[in-house]
Amino acid sequence: MANTYKIILDTKGGDNGPEVLIKGAAIALKKFDSLSYLMVGDRDLIEKECVSLSMPMDRVEILDAPNEITNYDNPAAALFEKQDSSMIKSLVALDTREDLLGLITTGNTGVLLGGTVRFLNSKERVRPCLAALLPNADGSFTCLVDTGATIDCSPQMLVHFAKQGSRFMKQMYGIESPRVGLLSNGAESTKGNKLVKETHALLAAESEINFIGNVEGNTALSGICDILVCDGFAGNLVLKVSEGMAKRLITDIVKYGKRTGNESIMELVGHLMKVYDFGSLGGGLILGTDKPVIKARGNSNETTVVSVSEMILNMVEHKAIFDKSRIEI
Amino acid sequence: MANTYKIILDTKGGDNGPEVLIKGAAIALKKFDSLSYLMVGDRDLIEKECVSLSMPMDRVEILDAPNEITNYDNPAAALFEKQDSSMIKSLVALDTREDLLGLITTGNTGVLLGGTVRFLNSKERVRPCLAALLPNADGSFTCLVDTGATIDCSPQMLVHFAKQGSRFMKQMYGIESPRVGLLSNGAESTKGNKLVKETHALLAAESEINFIGNVEGNTALSGICDILVCDGFAGNLVLKVSEGMAKRLITDIVKYGKRTGNESIMELVGHLMKVYDFGSLGGGLILGTDKPVIKARGNSNETTVVSVSEMILNMVEHKAIFDKSRIEI
Repeated sequence: MANTYKIILDTKGGDNGPEVLIKGAAIALKKFDSLSYLMVGDRDLIEKECVSLSMPMDRVEILDAPNEITNYDNPAAALFEKQDSSMIKSLVALDTREDLLGLITTGNTGVLLGGTVRFLNSKERVRPCLAALLPNADGSFTCLVDTGATIDCSPQMLVHFAKQGSRFMKQMYGIESPRVGLLSNGAESTKGNKLVKETHALLAAESEINFIGNVEGNTALSGICDILVCDGFAGNLVLKVSEGMAKRLITDIVKYGKRTGNESIMELVGHLMKVYDFGSLGGGLILGTDKPVIKARGNSNETTVVSVSEMILNMVEHKAIFDKSRIEI
Repeated sequence: MANTYKIILDTKGGDNGPEVLIKGAAIALKKFDSLSYLMVGDRDLIEKECVSLSMPMDRVEILDAPNEITNYDNPAAALFEKQDSSMIKSLVALDTREDLLGLITTGNTGVLLGGTVRFLNSKERVRPCLAALLPNADGSFTCLVDTGATIDCSPQMLVHFAKQGSRFMKQMYGIESPRVGLLSNGAESTKGNKLVKETHALLAAESEINFIGNVEGNTALSGICDILVCDGFAGNLVLKVSEGMAKRLITDIVKYGKRTGNESIMELVGHLMKVYDFGSLGGGLILGTDKPVIKARGNSNETTVVSVSEMILNMVEHKAIFDKSRIEI
C-alpha cells in the first residue's frame, strides 16, 4: 500500500467511551487515503469494533493498554503509577517511534500536559501550552494561548506562549511576522493586572516577536492579532464566555423563528451554528512539542475525531488547518 | 410644586461634551414628574442649554464648577488638586446635602472610586466596587462585581464585593437569599487560580451570604446566580467579550438579511440589539456607598442619561431597576 501518515488515537479517557472514537476513526480512514492509526486501549474491544465497522486493518495498528487515566487522577502521581495506561503508552510511543506523527487524546488535560513535559519536551525545554484556533470576524484565525493548561502563569511563561504561538502561525499559515496581542482590560500600555503589566514590558523588549500591544476583550476576535496571549484562567474565560454568548443568541433566534413562523430563520441558524460552534473546531492543540498533540474535548464524538485527524494531517503537510470557507456567512 | 427626588448630574468629563448630557436630562425631566437635577459644571453653558431646551427651571439647580477631571488625571493627585472640578464638587454635595439622593457621572473611573472612598464611604468602610446588572438568558439579572474598578484584588476584597452585591440584590429585587457565584475556570471547588481558590474557602465560611460555588464563563449569564464575583480584570473580560460576541453575531445577521433580502430579519435584529446592548443598560453602579452613584460610560448620550436617571429613581423607590419585558424576545 501507499505511504501513509500514521497518528495515534488514545481510545480511552473520553466521556462517551472508546466505541464512538473508533467509529470516528473509521469515517476518517474512508475520507483520507493517506491516513492510518495506531489505536491505543483494550485490544479486544478495539479489534471487535474494527471488525464490526469493516475497517481496513492494514491501516490500523493496535497497542494494548489495559489501564485508563481518568479526570480524578492526580497528574504527578498518574504519570509514574499508570505506565500501562493508554495515555502514557501513547506518549511513549509518540516519543520513541519515528513513524508516528501525532497524537489525539480526549483524556485528562493535567496528566497530558505533565506527560508532554516528561516525554515530548522539545529541545528548548519551554513550558507547553494549550492553544485554540478561533475564527475571527474578518475570516482569519487567532491562536489563543493559553486556554487553560496553566491557570496561574508567570510573565516569562506568557513570553514562551507568545513565541510558540508565533512559530505555529508562521509555519501553519505562512504569516511572515505574526502579530502578538496581549489580552488586557484596556488598550493602553498602562492598563492591565500585575501579570499583564509585567508581561507587556517583557514582550515589548523581545525582538523575535511582533508585539502589537494590549488587546481588549471586545476586539479580541476581530482579527486584530494572530496570537492572543493570556494566562489559562483568562483564556478559559474568553473561550467559555464567547461560546455561552453565541449559544444564547442562537437560542433566542430559534425562539424568534418559531414564534414568527419565519422558516428562513432556520437557515440563518444553520449558518451561525457552523461559524460559532467553537467546540467543533478541533480541540486544543498543545504547543511546545516537536510533534502535534491534540487534546480533544472529553465529550468528543465521531465528528471530532475526523476533524482533529484532518488537523494533524494538515499540520504535517504544513497546510492551513481549517477550511476558511466555513466561516463565511 | 410636588415633592421631587433630586439627583446630581456631573455635566463634565464625558466624551461628547456637556450639551448631550443636559439634553438627556431635559428628556428625563419630561418623562419623570418626580425628578429634579442639580447640574454641576459651567454655569453659563448649563443656563444657556436649559433655556434653549425650555427646561422647567424650578426643577433644575446649577452648581458652578469651572474645572474638569479628565481621563489623563492621576486619581490620587486629582482628588486633592482639583477641588473645583465638577466631579469633586458633585461628590462633596452628595456627601453634605441631605436633599440629594444620587449622582450620575461619565468621568474618570479611578478618580470617582478614590472620591467615593474619600467622601462617601459607608459606615462599614468597605472597598467600593463597580457593579453591572446584566440580563440573563432566563429573564433575570445578575449583578457582576467587580467590573473593572479594582484590577488586582485580594480574596478579602472579593468577599466584600459578594456582601455588597448580596445586599443590593436583596434591597432592589427583594430576593430573600441572593445566590453568590464565584467566577472560575471550572465548576469544581478545586478549580481556579490562586485568588479564586483562596476566595472560595473564605466565601464558603461566610454565614451571611448564600454561596453556591464556582460558576464557569459559559453559564455565567444563564441565571444560575444573582451575584457573580470576580476581580476587575476578569469582570472587564466578561463584559467586553460578551459585548463583542453579541455585536459580531448581530453584524453577521444583518449581512445575512441584506444578502438574502429577508426583511423580517431586520425585525429580529432590532429585538437582539435591545436585549444585548449591555452598554445601554445604565452604566456601572458603585456599591459600598450609602447613596447611589452611577458611573455612566464616557461616550454616554441622551438615552444613557434618561436610563440611569430612571435607575436611580427606581433604586430610591426600591423598585426593580429594569423593565423585564425588554429582555423578552
